[in-house]
Amino acid sequence: MATVDLLLVQVAVVFGLAKGLGELFHRFRQPRIVGEILGGVLVLNTPLWEWLQFNQNRDFVTVLAELGVVFLMFYVGLETPPRELFLVGRRATVVAVLGVMFPLAVGMAIGLGIGVPRATAIFIGVALVATSIGVTAALLREHKKLDTVEARVILGAAFIDDILGLVLLSVVGGLALSGGLSLVGVSIFVVGALVFVVAALVLLPRLVNYILSKREEKEPPEVAEAPSSPVRNLIFLAALLLLFGLSALASYIGLAVILGAFLAGMAFAEIRKAYDLTRRVDIVTQLLTPFFFASIGMALQASAVPAILPLLVLLVIAAVATKVIGCGLGAWPLGRRSALLIGFGMVPRGEVGIIVATIALSAGVFDAGLYAAIVIMAVVTTLLLPPLLPRLFAGGSQATDPATIG
Amino acid sequence: MATVDLLLVQVAVVFGLAKGLGELFHRFRQPRIVGEILGGVLVLNTPLWEWLQFNQNRDFVTVLAELGVVFLMFYVGLETPPRELFLVGRRATVVAVLGVMFPLAVGMAIGLGIGVPRATAIFIGVALVATSIGVTAALLREHKKLDTVEARVILGAAFIDDILGLVLLSVVGGLALSGGLSLVGVSIFVVGALVFVVAALVLLPRLVNYILSKREEKEPPEVAEAPSSPVRNLIFLAALLLLFGLSALASYIGLAVILGAFLAGMAFAEIRKAYDLTRRVDIVTQLLTPFFFASIGMALQASAVPAILPLLVLLVIAAVATKVIGCGLGAWPLGRRSALLIGFGMVPRGEVGIIVATIALSAGVFDAGLYAAIVIMAVVTTLLLPPLLPRLFAGGSQATDPATIG
Repeated sequence: MATVDLLLVQVAVVFGLAKGLGELFHRFRQPRIVGEILGGVLVLNTPLWEWLQFNQNRDFVTVLAELGVVFLMFYVGLETPPRELFLVGRRATVVAVLGVMFPLAVGMAIGLGIGVPRATAIFIGVALVATSIGVTAALLREHKKLDTVEARVILGAAFIDDILGLVLLSVVGGLALSGGLSLVGVSIFVVGALVFVVAALVLLPRLVNYILSKREEKEPPEVAEAPSSPVRNLIFLAALLLLFGLSALASYIGLAVILGAFLAGMAFAEIRKAYDLTRRVDIVTQLLTPFFFASIGMALQASAVPAILPLLVLLVIAAVATKVIGCGLGAWPLGRRSALLIGFGMVPRGEVGIIVATIALSAGVFDAGLYAAIVIMAVVTTLLLPPLLPRLFAGGSQATDPATIG
Repeated sequence: MATVDLLLVQVAVVFGLAKGLGELFHRFRQPRIVGEILGGVLVLNTPLWEWLQFNQNRDFVTVLAELGVVFLMFYVGLETPPRELFLVGRRATVVAVLGVMFPLAVGMAIGLGIGVPRATAIFIGVALVATSIGVTAALLREHKKLDTVEARVILGAAFIDDILGLVLLSVVGGLALSGGLSLVGVSIFVVGALVFVVAALVLLPRLVNYILSKREEKEPPEVAEAPSSPVRNLIFLAALLLLFGLSALASYIGLAVILGAFLAGMAFAEIRKAYDLTRRVDIVTQLLTPFFFASIGMALQASAVPAILPLLVLLVIAAVATKVIGCGLGAWPLGRRSALLIGFGMVPRGEVGIIVATIALSAGVFDAGLYAAIVIMAVVTTLLLPPLLPRLFAGGSQATDPATIG
């Protein structure tokens, strides 16, 4: 089979399995996401893996997965007007900082406890820090809870957490791998990241609103807002260009691609309804996010589990407890129920934990067993949240003022 | 840069350039497609090519391009109820057969005239046969002419042409490359292709309509047809699964992937409006087709042109004349204007010509000069049609009975 045809078959099989299982789960009132992740697990642990030649080439599905989470976070950004995020800024910062400190300390303690070298212990800590916001965001979206205070705190904290995690990774990466630490390099990164985030958060929404208000002077909104008006197509295009541009820029300065996607979404948050953006992006995410969840599942090698079971159990308990306690403490002033919700919302490690483990493996800091334990821990923490979240929300949540959310 | 990040930047740059130039062209009342193809030409002929490392890895953009034309043909299928295609079946067959014979004969004559070996001459003929239906389909769609008799004949003929071309390629491929010809293999392919097409064309639409009529007994259409009803999401999902499945199956039995996509679209043609399929697929095509057109442009190496100019001019004239005369003769009974329209509609060689040339190059039948001439011929014939088509349609076209088109 020619490469391109093989890649298409890979796409068809992964999409079919993940989306099919997702719908099956949904039909039996189970979370779609779990079905989609299990689709990936099935691909990895059956002869499909060999047949689709994933051992030789899985870049394509990986990039579709990345595009999937990019569009997902773009969608979540569209549902998050910047001022709503500013309102919870301080709370989110406290949640993020405590949610980084607890897992880092406990992860390092576990490492030292099982007798690995110090560099390895530090990397275990960093792997426990990483939060995969994509999973929580998709769940909040599925349950239509993106407009709650808790969702805003989780989103804000996850992104601060992401920046802190990257700083940590570059610091310990520098220490562990080259033996030295470039303070200048780290400072440049932190300043660059802050400038990027603040600029995107403050300037872009104003720019978008300004351009559209200029436009509306020429053309009344009733015309522009007709279902198939060319303006809507143009704005969809502009949004896509900004999405790709900010994602690539974020990646270029060393930040997570999805942070760029989230910021791009927020820039259009106030006009999303008038110009039909949410619906359009929703359709694209229906197509692409199954690749994201399936690719997380494609890290759970079932045959590796028995050998590492005790360590795996320890890591999963630590991963859940440290985030629930750390983030929960940070969110305590919002009330016990909200604190629990936010704590559990930060539990999934998903693809971020897998990325840290992969870096550690290729740097020789992790051996195959530790790598498998961390990766499977990341998948398991991701599978834990979906059945829990509806129960956590069941007692009601503090929706923010509906007038500002629309 | 990590591979995945590099691929994302490739995606962002190609999408931005192609879509940006496309919109710019549209603004100045030029065809979008030309802008999008030129976006690809720009990527190839500037330092962007090196910077994006396309010389090392362009599979990803190639597959996005393939997904783009897959969704494009799915959309076109949605607009083509099977019975409309049956109505023009005989005419389309005549158009296809004549449109294969003329280019094949003239291409071989050119080859023998410039003194290349016979196998090479045959491959030049085959490269002139291939029609790229994606380009014409996109143009027909942009000008809202998919519901005309001419469009149906072009679509029907292009697919028969595609099957004939593949038979030719396997025959001459067998002859030229291995020196022998497996009549059994060719027969199996032809029978398999016919069974696949007829089964998809006759059975699938009935199956889809049957399942939905069962559903509607349980749930009145008013409920199912609400904008965000779960049924719509489910049918969108079913359509996507059928799309991927049929495309992969078509590729598996050796047919063009886009034929599978077109057949999948036709299966839903009669219910497309009720369940909002057209709009959803349209949104995905807006995102993906720019990659298809850009990737065609990414075959036009400007620096290769001077050395091969005389041959290129000869090939382009032959490519245009043989399709216009061959297909035009076949369509003559529909009237002079329709015949011209159909003839020109079959001119673009696009990605199909490029694929044939690539096979011939890797088999050692083409040298680098001939390869460049055929590939650039394919791009040039594709660039010729967009400015012509509106003029050809300007005199009015025979729309089929609007009652059956809806």
